[in-house]
Amino acid sequence: MILLPFPGMDALAREIAAPSGAAVRPIGLHRFPDGEGVVTLPEGIAGGDLAIVATLRDPDRLALPLRFAAATARELGATRVGLIAPYLGYMRQDRRFALGQAVSAPLFARFLGESFDWLVTVDPHLHRIARLEDVFPMLALRVATAPLIARWIAAEVPDAVLLGPDSESQQWVADVARQAGRPYEVLRKQRRGDRAVDITVPKSADLRRYRPVILDDIASSGRTMAHAVERVMSAGGSAPVCILIHAVFAGGACDDIRAAGAARIVTTDTIPHPSNAISVARSLASAITTIPPVSMTSELNT
Amino acid sequence: MILLPFPGMDALAREIAAPSGAAVRPIGLHRFPDGEGVVTLPEGIAGGDLAIVATLRDPDRLALPLRFAAATARELGATRVGLIAPYLGYMRQDRRFALGQAVSAPLFARFLGESFDWLVTVDPHLHRIARLEDVFPMLALRVATAPLIARWIAAEVPDAVLLGPDSESQQWVADVARQAGRPYEVLRKQRRGDRAVDITVPKSADLRRYRPVILDDIASSGRTMAHAVERVMSAGGSAPVCILIHAVFAGGACDDIRAAGAARIVTTDTIPHPSNAISVARSLASAITTIPPVSMTSELNT
Repeated sequence: MILLPFPGMDALAREIAAPSGAAVRPIGLHRFPDGEGVVTLPEGIAGGDLAIVATLRDPDRLALPLRFAAATARELGATRVGLIAPYLGYMRQDRRFALGQAVSAPLFARFLGESFDWLVTVDPHLHRIARLEDVFPMLALRVATAPLIARWIAAEVPDAVLLGPDSESQQWVADVARQAGRPYEVLRKQRRGDRAVDITVPKSADLRRYRPVILDDIASSGRTMAHAVERVMSAGGSAPVCILIHAVFAGGACDDIRAAGAARIVTTDTIPHPSNAISVARSLASAITTIPPVSMTSELNT
Repeated sequence: MILLPFPGMDALAREIAAPSGAAVRPIGLHRFPDGEGVVTLPEGIAGGDLAIVATLRDPDRLALPLRFAAATARELGATRVGLIAPYLGYMRQDRRFALGQAVSAPLFARFLGESFDWLVTVDPHLHRIARLEDVFPMLALRVATAPLIARWIAAEVPDAVLLGPDSESQQWVADVARQAGRPYEVLRKQRRGDRAVDITVPKSADLRRYRPVILDDIASSGRTMAHAVERVMSAGGSAPVCILIHAVFAGGACDDIRAAGAARIVTTDTIPHPSNAISVARSLASAITTIPPVSMTSELNT
């Protein structure tokens, strides 16, 4: 397999390639002054089994470059083109929240399906969609970060008490806690209007005895996480460690969480960010080894 | 027909709708803090014959919203969805200028063809592509601005001498000049490397006798136009009027052209900009009246 990283994804692509012996050949993406882009593929892809590596933070900006890259790869003779998207955008918009609104998640899935033969991603934010296969028309694999986060906690915060931000996170946080061999609690979250969030911390001796580690998948505005940090500390906990799967920080979200009192903010490297401390590269490498070889998939498709 | 303008296109949509009696119902496009967008369609589109109005300046930013809007319109029962794109991006990338480069023009055309039943645009920047039908898989109509520009020149600059920026523009400038009943000349342009352009002004008595009006279709960086202004003035011409079809000004391009000495910069309203002075609305309104009714096209498609 040949990995073709988009700009900024070279380091992750090399780490994914290392265990499997895949080649890495970066894609060029030039922006003209008027905002149009032009994608340039590397040499030597004719006949190749390709995987484009692009993290889908700011997916609108990347949609046409992805489409153009995949189509050009096929024009130049690639036999198969997959997509390794460590962060997958648009999965939160999984229903019509208001009259006339686009249900972007399945539309985006279909859009990617028109370009790519398979997809590998990391813990997508699926809410009402049960499985990726329900919206993606092609083979779509998900890598779970729970074992990676559990291992990091066991090594770096051996006295942790894990905290889930809301009842929906219960199952996931329980799973990480079990794998880390640590206790956990779940906070209670109530939305008050568009931006205000109310968080209640359960009465728990563990919370005062151990180091609080708050987990969430993303922190877009960072308000929920910042608020959780404050509440945990005013309930008598020490400065919490905050772990987020994807470093989707909008504006000053990361600074706001730090300013609220977080002892440390830690993310996986699905989106390049200074807070990255947990690598998903080996898990992605394992996932792509499970993709059937080109000859088998072409038989499956006929 | 119901026109659905994207944000910023309401005014043009109303002017297009006025002569034909079409309804106008704006599309909402909200941006979340993380860069994802959500499109909201207006009520009352079930069973409708729709035309989305969006100018494709910065096409990457608009590609998914266009895709999502068209798909959602169909989900909500629209019988047909067309696209009025006064400015059509990506048409300049019509061949592989370097090894491995994407040929974006036909790829973008195919992308739009997957969402829209027809397209109407204004003077697309076609170079090696002879006709829109060669790259667009659906009905694609082009509105010519030559008569509109000629009428504007005849009324506003009755003593004009028209100037084309290069030999490629000869045919177009000759056509505008003929319709305006004015003389014309063509400048000679030579590219020296990536950004430097050399322009030669022909020896011409008309140039000193009349008011120079330099025409071009776009001025992305504005360098060619600014340089032409300088050269015309140093050849003894008075401060030129600059007419551009599409107001694709990157960065300070418009200011640079003004600083070079342009007496006035005038554009059509294909892209909203303070320099807009020539309206394409009536021409677009005429073009959409030539689109066969839904019943006929559905027969054609079967």
